[in-house]
Amino acid sequence: MFMMTSNISYHSMKGTNLKNRCIRLTFVVFLTFLFFYFLIHHFLSDADSSIQNVNYYKSRYRLENIENYEDFSALKATDLKQRIAEMLKIKSTVSAELRELEAKRQKLQLDISGYNAKIDELKQELSRQQTELNRLKISVEQAQVAQREAVLRNTPELALPKALYSNVLPKNYKPLLASEYLKCKMSNCFDHSRCSITSSFPIYLYDPDVVSVTNQGYEIDIFLKTTIKQTFGYNAHLTKDPKIACIFLILVGEALSDQETLRNNRYANTVDMKAPLSSEILNVTALYKLKYWASDGRNHVLLNLARRDLSTGSRNVFANVNTGRAMLVQSTFNENQFRQGFDLIVPPILGSPGGDVWQECSQMLPARRKYLLSFQGEMTAINKSNSQISDEQQLDEFIIEHLKEISNGMHSDKFYLQFECIPATEQTNLAAIEDWYLCGTDNSRRTILKDSTFALVLVPERSIISSTLLQARIYESLRAGAIPIILGGDQIELPFSEMIEWRRAVMFLPKARVTELHFLLRSVPDIDLLFMRRQGRLIWERYLSSVQATIDTIVANIRDRLGIPPKPIAAVKAVSVFNSTFIPLKSDPPIMDIEPEESLGPIEPPYPSPQFRRNYTVFLTQRREIWNDWADPFNLYPHLPFDPVLPSDAKFIGSNLGFRPIGKGVGGTGKEFGESLGGNHPREQFTIVILTYEREQVLMDSLSRLYGLPYLHKVIVVWNSPKPPLEDLRWPEIGVQVEVVKAARNSLNNRFLPYDAIETEAVLSVDDDAHLRHDEILFGFRVWREHRDQIVGFPGRYHAWNINGAWNYNSNYSCELSMVLTGAAFFHKYYTYLYTYWLPQAIRDKVDEYMNCEDIAMNFLVSHITRQPPKKVTSRWTFRCPVCPVSLSEDDTHFQERHKCINFFSKVFGYTPLLNTQYRADSILFKTRIPHDKQKCFKFI
Amino acid sequence: MFMMTSNISYHSMKGTNLKNRCIRLTFVVFLTFLFFYFLIHHFLSDADSSIQNVNYYKSRYRLENIENYEDFSALKATDLKQRIAEMLKIKSTVSAELRELEAKRQKLQLDISGYNAKIDELKQELSRQQTELNRLKISVEQAQVAQREAVLRNTPELALPKALYSNVLPKNYKPLLASEYLKCKMSNCFDHSRCSITSSFPIYLYDPDVVSVTNQGYEIDIFLKTTIKQTFGYNAHLTKDPKIACIFLILVGEALSDQETLRNNRYANTVDMKAPLSSEILNVTALYKLKYWASDGRNHVLLNLARRDLSTGSRNVFANVNTGRAMLVQSTFNENQFRQGFDLIVPPILGSPGGDVWQECSQMLPARRKYLLSFQGEMTAINKSNSQISDEQQLDEFIIEHLKEISNGMHSDKFYLQFECIPATEQTNLAAIEDWYLCGTDNSRRTILKDSTFALVLVPERSIISSTLLQARIYESLRAGAIPIILGGDQIELPFSEMIEWRRAVMFLPKARVTELHFLLRSVPDIDLLFMRRQGRLIWERYLSSVQATIDTIVANIRDRLGIPPKPIAAVKAVSVFNSTFIPLKSDPPIMDIEPEESLGPIEPPYPSPQFRRNYTVFLTQRREIWNDWADPFNLYPHLPFDPVLPSDAKFIGSNLGFRPIGKGVGGTGKEFGESLGGNHPREQFTIVILTYEREQVLMDSLSRLYGLPYLHKVIVVWNSPKPPLEDLRWPEIGVQVEVVKAARNSLNNRFLPYDAIETEAVLSVDDDAHLRHDEILFGFRVWREHRDQIVGFPGRYHAWNINGAWNYNSNYSCELSMVLTGAAFFHKYYTYLYTYWLPQAIRDKVDEYMNCEDIAMNFLVSHITRQPPKKVTSRWTFRCPVCPVSLSEDDTHFQERHKCINFFSKVFGYTPLLNTQYRADSILFKTRIPHDKQKCFKFI
Repeated sequence: MFMMTSNISYHSMKGTNLKNRCIRLTFVVFLTFLFFYFLIHHFLSDADSSIQNVNYYKSRYRLENIENYEDFSALKATDLKQRIAEMLKIKSTVSAELRELEAKRQKLQLDISGYNAKIDELKQELSRQQTELNRLKISVEQAQVAQREAVLRNTPELALPKALYSNVLPKNYKPLLASEYLKCKMSNCFDHSRCSITSSFPIYLYDPDVVSVTNQGYEIDIFLKTTIKQTFGYNAHLTKDPKIACIFLILVGEALSDQETLRNNRYANTVDMKAPLSSEILNVTALYKLKYWASDGRNHVLLNLARRDLSTGSRNVFANVNTGRAMLVQSTFNENQFRQGFDLIVPPILGSPGGDVWQECSQMLPARRKYLLSFQGEMTAINKSNSQISDEQQLDEFIIEHLKEISNGMHSDKFYLQFECIPATEQTNLAAIEDWYLCGTDNSRRTILKDSTFALVLVPERSIISSTLLQARIYESLRAGAIPIILGGDQIELPFSEMIEWRRAVMFLPKARVTELHFLLRSVPDIDLLFMRRQGRLIWERYLSSVQATIDTIVANIRDRLGIPPKPIAAVKAVSVFNSTFIPLKSDPPIMDIEPEESLGPIEPPYPSPQFRRNYTVFLTQRREIWNDWADPFNLYPHLPFDPVLPSDAKFIGSNLGFRPIGKGVGGTGKEFGESLGGNHPREQFTIVILTYEREQVLMDSLSRLYGLPYLHKVIVVWNSPKPPLEDLRWPEIGVQVEVVKAARNSLNNRFLPYDAIETEAVLSVDDDAHLRHDEILFGFRVWREHRDQIVGFPGRYHAWNINGAWNYNSNYSCELSMVLTGAAFFHKYYTYLYTYWLPQAIRDKVDEYMNCEDIAMNFLVSHITRQPPKKVTSRWTFRCPVCPVSLSEDDTHFQERHKCINFFSKVFGYTPLLNTQYRADSILFKTRIPHDKQKCFKFI
Repeated sequence: MFMMTSNISYHSMKGTNLKNRCIRLTFVVFLTFLFFYFLIHHFLSDADSSIQNVNYYKSRYRLENIENYEDFSALKATDLKQRIAEMLKIKSTVSAELRELEAKRQKLQLDISGYNAKIDELKQELSRQQTELNRLKISVEQAQVAQREAVLRNTPELALPKALYSNVLPKNYKPLLASEYLKCKMSNCFDHSRCSITSSFPIYLYDPDVVSVTNQGYEIDIFLKTTIKQTFGYNAHLTKDPKIACIFLILVGEALSDQETLRNNRYANTVDMKAPLSSEILNVTALYKLKYWASDGRNHVLLNLARRDLSTGSRNVFANVNTGRAMLVQSTFNENQFRQGFDLIVPPILGSPGGDVWQECSQMLPARRKYLLSFQGEMTAINKSNSQISDEQQLDEFIIEHLKEISNGMHSDKFYLQFECIPATEQTNLAAIEDWYLCGTDNSRRTILKDSTFALVLVPERSIISSTLLQARIYESLRAGAIPIILGGDQIELPFSEMIEWRRAVMFLPKARVTELHFLLRSVPDIDLLFMRRQGRLIWERYLSSVQATIDTIVANIRDRLGIPPKPIAAVKAVSVFNSTFIPLKSDPPIMDIEPEESLGPIEPPYPSPQFRRNYTVFLTQRREIWNDWADPFNLYPHLPFDPVLPSDAKFIGSNLGFRPIGKGVGGTGKEFGESLGGNHPREQFTIVILTYEREQVLMDSLSRLYGLPYLHKVIVVWNSPKPPLEDLRWPEIGVQVEVVKAARNSLNNRFLPYDAIETEAVLSVDDDAHLRHDEILFGFRVWREHRDQIVGFPGRYHAWNINGAWNYNSNYSCELSMVLTGAAFFHKYYTYLYTYWLPQAIRDKVDEYMNCEDIAMNFLVSHITRQPPKKVTSRWTFRCPVCPVSLSEDDTHFQERHKCINFFSKVFGYTPLLNTQYRADSILFKTRIPHDKQKCFKFI
């Protein structure tokens, strides 16, 4: 009984089929009781102390004797004595007989249990073989389907196309007339023949140190020249061969006169100089004589970038110049000059050359700041004193009066409005156009903007569609997290508006609506406020913040307009830790007695995920998302986690390629489920990435456990230790390739390097000591396939708000989670690129500094991009190996660091992107009573 | 023991805490065994048949006597006799004593068990009281938080604003010069003062039967006049009061000459008439004399809709006419004439007046059709015979040659290209512009387009930015599901491009890229192909298909441009089934012994979800989604399931209003979890909607079970029976309002009516006989809060592909699901509007025809909008009431109908929007071993 109960409790601890077992157990107990009950009854009525296994006859015999006990008195003493002796004799015989029988019985029992054990063994072996057979069958079937597909497939596999280049220099056409150049569109002024869609968009930059198109006396600042040259150098599209170039770029400005250069105060509010005419600055003859101008400047891009000279207002060097078929790129445009869809409006180049820019930005919270609205500026109305006031000026005056009224109104909202700031002495020489000059310094303005929920932006005179001052104002607002509200927003154009969805970050309001302004501002709820602020920051960081950002965006904008995909993003070359001649020792496949035997899927040959299949369509159907949500239009990714899904009938009508519907479309439970991946996406495999550091045996054990794991494509072991693996280490043979990759240095960031060796979209990242069961892994894989853009995995954690007003990392049991640790989680390979190239460097540095937090960083990244919490998947019995050396995560420092990480990362992002989730994914029939002819989706989970 | 085991098995059947119970049970069994073992041993060594409860002393006494039995022989007979008599006497005394003792024992045992029962009862009562107390405590706390919030809240609650109207007629300004009207923008030609953002955008239509601005001889078709008047009548913005109107619309065309009217063949390919000059048609004097023209036509919208006269090509009645500040709406525009952001390009009015249009469309599958590309048309080059061929004509000829070459090339793709179709006799009089005429008839073209994956669209001469023929071509392509590929796409504009993201449905290609056309078409994978086709159909159905669609879209486009929200969508008035004087009888709250006692959340006063909070921001931050994803820019919804989420720090920094973080932000397990909603959204409640039909007692039972359900706002009972409830029916008092709503007729569509009485975003729809436990409901509610745009519920079903190539409805056990039935599911109130107003009528009709399938329709709808599968939530023990009359769902007809529904709905949608899911949501700590000081998230699930 002892054994039996402990056996039962073992099973019940396993927590499976408990209900049935309990019923069975109770029944057994009941039977046992019945048995004992009768036994006791028997003995009680027998009143005999003999062993229980006496046979009936013998006991009857003795009983008869004893039952006659009442008659002893009638017997003679000798008779009695004789009788007693006789009885004693009988007793000893019976005893001997009994002993014999008992021995026999014991031997028989021993035999029986021996046989039983053997039978059990055989049965187990049989079921193992059966499962193996089933698995093989499925694998064979799947292989046949794959083979049929390979034969039938009617779309050729698309690979990264070969670049197809122009290889002639531009030829001369007849030059454009003055009346024609203003009508330029891509369709009549651009030569597409230089820009094949497979060309990867090669661009040529006239060396700014050599070629100049400005007049003497107007020089381009050396800093600007150097930085531009440098940033173009980082742009993947740059070519030195003008023959193959699609576009030719030349830096035209900002060119300042010596006098202006001397002044040298970028954010000065001095307006004491007359702006020079464009003909004074631009050397048109030099322009026409550019080496590849070819009479009409086809495919030329003229860059006139404002940087230091915000004080002179908006300098439009191209005004009234016949620039032929060249595209103009600057921040100032007249209404008549700007050719929509051809020229480009850019922000002034106010930021650093490149690198991390997050320090420049303000925190996003709280949503509502000290001032509801702020404005600092002064209009340089040319004819302020003039009695003849235009309609426009009249309106502007009304606006100012109205705003002042609001700001003094009876309500709780605070305004910071400043409409005059330029000393009278400096107003003698005003700029050429009417515009709102900036007050104060970069710093003083930043202080106010950081405290403003909204930043009012007033527009220049009606004929100006964009001015440097306007763009600078928007740039500064976004940087400080003040939401720009542009009064007169229907008159102006914002930078890169062909690609950027500005409405999500900036409010546009006709001037006439100034009376509704206050009402509107009050009606913006916090969710939209923070959404717009976040979006504004995203736009600012990616497209406006630095010289590199602006240059890359100019190039990407023109490229995307032409329908040419960007260059594929660079993968990290996986270098083997073994030298090329060394062949690591192998150990045999492990004996599979730890893992539950269950057919979880077919074992198939390696099937890498198809790459670069949407090169020419992703920018068609998802351009807006690429630019505005995922914010990386600069690179072409081999695959994205955001692909649209096919209709569910498509996999049966015409688009069945690669699909493996459950039960061939009929659906089903465990058996059919185990045989096919099903779901809404075609079949695929996943790659396991294991980061390891000097725990060779632990790693070998972990590897062994992967033997026979279906859908596993490859295992990548990132060898973080500088010491290579021991030569006599035996690597388990697990049926798939194990690539051991040498890390350049011991960094946890290596866990997320986008290795070229990862050939699948799905990456399962696991710690070297994590013990995941096969069924857990495969269920996780299936859940990930439904949430390809999320982290889907096992260990859940959360960020808790502590009383000091900061975040704590928390690994306690909890009913709400916000992180899934990448010690055991699936994610899309896309995120390895983002982690490595897109995240601010400060975050990877922090990870290296603490040797910690890389998993937190990944959770921040994914939640930031998707605005969704991770998905936790059920784990039946996940534990770390008990004999392993104490892992990092155990000591208190580790925890302290993780608290700090969350708060630091929040600072870098400007907010905490993590979100909460309150459920876990379990398999559909888990703990469900189902009919006996059905199987659960998984036996144990 | 019997009782005990059965008790245990009862518990174990409940399936909760099984593990612990099993261990405990085993222990008890073990103890019992020990006890029996000793007992048996005792008796065996005693060799006595007396009752087991003899006391020790007595048994010792007798034993001594019996042990001496061997010495009987030594005794004298008389002694022996005496001794025996003595013994017998002792025996009888002992027996009597024993009986007495036994009786006493039995009485004591009875007493003990009585006391035990009483104690158990008290304990249960205590725990119930404790839970109730806890619940009250939480409720009090929550109430305090809510009260504090009410005091502190700094944003005033926004309600639907009062309309603020202009109430003067337009005043005269000085007329615009001929040079000025071509420069009209919203900022200089539109009078915003008539259009307050709170005005709900009233529009005035000049009665087309009364007012005409065409010359004699050119009449607007009676059908067009009538239909336009009618469709405007259905538009919620129409007003009869010109004083309050924001815009004034007048129908200018299509005006045909009597001769043209006689011809009367809308899709004719005859081009045998010279197009009339605009001055011949338009009566400019009449235009300027329009009653509210006020000298410059401010806020006037001139509608020139093409319908019948595609043959004369593109009729531009406004060419060279000074239309003042009026906006032009037509399908033909010259490059110089079209004022971006001011005028509107519309498709020709080719469809029916209104109503269901899905029959017009082709099925979306298969993705790849017979022809890769098709084109039917002929260019009416004016100077075809002329030897002087322009650059443009040269390019066009190259294009045609190249396309012909491709189509005859060595590859497996089929092309259907027809560049000539107009008989020479009809080419004598050609239209005023060069454009591609349609070949054949509407029907013949449709036949080809239905078989084309892509439809080539060639553009008119360069100066034309949009032509009726071009738009007709795109209209027909989208209708047939052929993806338009516009060669010259950089020269033209598409309808409503301000709002519609055409790139997701149409491919634009510069003419120069014709050489890359074939490569590009081949490179489009099926997912993008079907995505574009689906998007094209969505655009076509919502914005182009019918007269109503086009008129509504014109109005919505101008409204949205002005930043004015649409009118709020109409809710359905909930009429009580009781007359106003009748007060239904109440029954006492039920005794809560069925439901497990667990504190699941606070009981709070009713808290309706805030409404219309994003009126002025949703079109800012989510305009693109509204127009292109959710496809309803025509109505303002009280709330949407697509709101952005706040950063998780916002609820602690400045935006804490309404948030109830778990453990005040610290997180936690069961206890803290039960106390607060947590999650990423503020607190809210849900409404239960029960559809019922003549099962009063079943309903009353279901209602009773809702007693004490936290977060329940209200119960709406939709009374589908024509018979009102019995007057003596007692309605259970359940702590929240129960509204019994009279249904106009017995229809399952009533389940999804957007009743005004539903005041929360979350709707839990349940069958009247469904038995959901409180914990299940609340867990479902929490999961729904994470997937507000999904159906989140309990009964999972799927659609299976049968061998006949059609769908079957399937309710078998399955590991993959695609539907969650609305017999027990949460969804957003938004979908009740869409179901009632947005779905094609044919679907609701089918539901009425079969009295079935409304739940399938809802699943189609939600998957169509979100392209995601529903979320299944764990259900511990969901069953239908066993004594209820057999429900609909049981018979076979019911199933057959449901098969048919899926296939019919797929036909209506053009594809099967359902998607698969392979997991279920379970609570995070379900079946997880946790420390003893922690509680699970829910006790039983």
